[in-house]
Amino acid sequence: MSSLIKFKLVIAYDGTAYQGWQVQKVGTGVQEKIEVAFGKMFPSVKRIHSSSRTDTGVHALGMVAHVEIPRAEFKMPDDIRVLSAVRVPEKFHARFDATGKQYRYFVWNHVAMNPLLQNRAWHFPMKLDLAKMRAAAKLFLGEHDFKSFAGTRSYEMESNVRTLARCDIKKSGAQLTFIIEGDGFLYKMCRGIVGTLVQVGQGKIPLAKVQSILASRDRRVAGMTAPAHGLVLWKVFYQPPRHKDTKKTKP
Amino acid sequence: MSSLIKFKLVIAYDGTAYQGWQVQKVGTGVQEKIEVAFGKMFPSVKRIHSSSRTDTGVHALGMVAHVEIPRAEFKMPDDIRVLSAVRVPEKFHARFDATGKQYRYFVWNHVAMNPLLQNRAWHFPMKLDLAKMRAAAKLFLGEHDFKSFAGTRSYEMESNVRTLARCDIKKSGAQLTFIIEGDGFLYKMCRGIVGTLVQVGQGKIPLAKVQSILASRDRRVAGMTAPAHGLVLWKVFYQPPRHKDTKKTKP
Repeated sequence: MSSLIKFKLVIAYDGTAYQGWQVQKVGTGVQEKIEVAFGKMFPSVKRIHSSSRTDTGVHALGMVAHVEIPRAEFKMPDDIRVLSAVRVPEKFHARFDATGKQYRYFVWNHVAMNPLLQNRAWHFPMKLDLAKMRAAAKLFLGEHDFKSFAGTRSYEMESNVRTLARCDIKKSGAQLTFIIEGDGFLYKMCRGIVGTLVQVGQGKIPLAKVQSILASRDRRVAGMTAPAHGLVLWKVFYQPPRHKDTKKTKP
Repeated sequence: MSSLIKFKLVIAYDGTAYQGWQVQKVGTGVQEKIEVAFGKMFPSVKRIHSSSRTDTGVHALGMVAHVEIPRAEFKMPDDIRVLSAVRVPEKFHARFDATGKQYRYFVWNHVAMNPLLQNRAWHFPMKLDLAKMRAAAKLFLGEHDFKSFAGTRSYEMESNVRTLARCDIKKSGAQLTFIIEGDGFLYKMCRGIVGTLVQVGQGKIPLAKVQSILASRDRRVAGMTAPAHGLVLWKVFYQPPRHKDTKKTKP
């Protein structure tokens, strides 16, 4: 693991007030201003490296530079990473604007656990009937009242109706991947669906019973809640932005 | 101009060590770790807002959250903006990996200057023959020795051969936009090309003479150097990355 993280920066500037890009002996270069700003956030950053130099008074909308920032200066634990940070309009809200989510649940279906999937997948050593599980998974598609699959934290007063667009099971060797996509999820709903599907595959819950479990709106009649450590919040969906190419604005 | 800048964050984490996403009364939430890290870089940031909550032990590859950072805490002058910061491989180099650049040069061709383009465009009040200028611009396309168009800083020993892929002139009312794209540019080369093309349009340099100016490899025979404030470094080109979708890696 490298101790330096490299970023490509795209930089815009009005060159009117500067003696060009480069750090100057007399006067101020654009580069210097950016280095000072980065240096305040990340004390060890002294230099940014550009693709080009521009002269006194020349502007830029797409100057590219790179910068290396020591991993330690992000102060982030090793098990958490910010993968991207993108500027959004003031009215954007991570929760209220989300149009859907995709969860993935990983099961390791073999007598011996894969030690590399420890804490990453549910170890389920018993035989599973994949065809039955896939048939059951289809019954969850579309709009349903998912109260039978919600944890006890869900309140009586709120709607338990959600719409699933995807409920697939992929198999690769001993690894099963459940892909569950919907407009929203109740507390522990994903783990309730996976637990039930696994018990269908095991023969503990008859395929014919799944529809009546959904209809009952009663948590006690559904299958088990699959353990937390197999579940990954895979993706959150938003409407595509209305104005995509800011480059089309005239400078 | 809003004083808060909003970012959409995509966050990945191994949930094993955390009591879920949310800040906890007992134990540690993932959210808290991220808030502490942002707080160290941007002192006034206390809260990040997520799309979802995950339970104890649940992981994420695509958790989305938003954060608002006061503009003042970026310490960047108003005339310089970092438009994007994208993580790149260690071997990326802003200058050595660049495969080409696009410059745009703006001319305001009207007796009265547009006050909104002050310091943004070269005010050229005399009549210009656009058809002649476009014919001359075509002569610059392809591979040439551009020594006649380079500033005095270019060294005798280095190659002055560059390849232009684009040399267009667009007209919108009184505004002319020169779009010049190539694998590299000599010192003041863009401004030398624009100055020469404008003098062709003005009738000061005959169209028939442009090819012999290029052939002469002598700065003194070419046209004037257009002023700096009309020039914008528009875009820097790189090879597309070889591995695009990191999401395809199994967790």
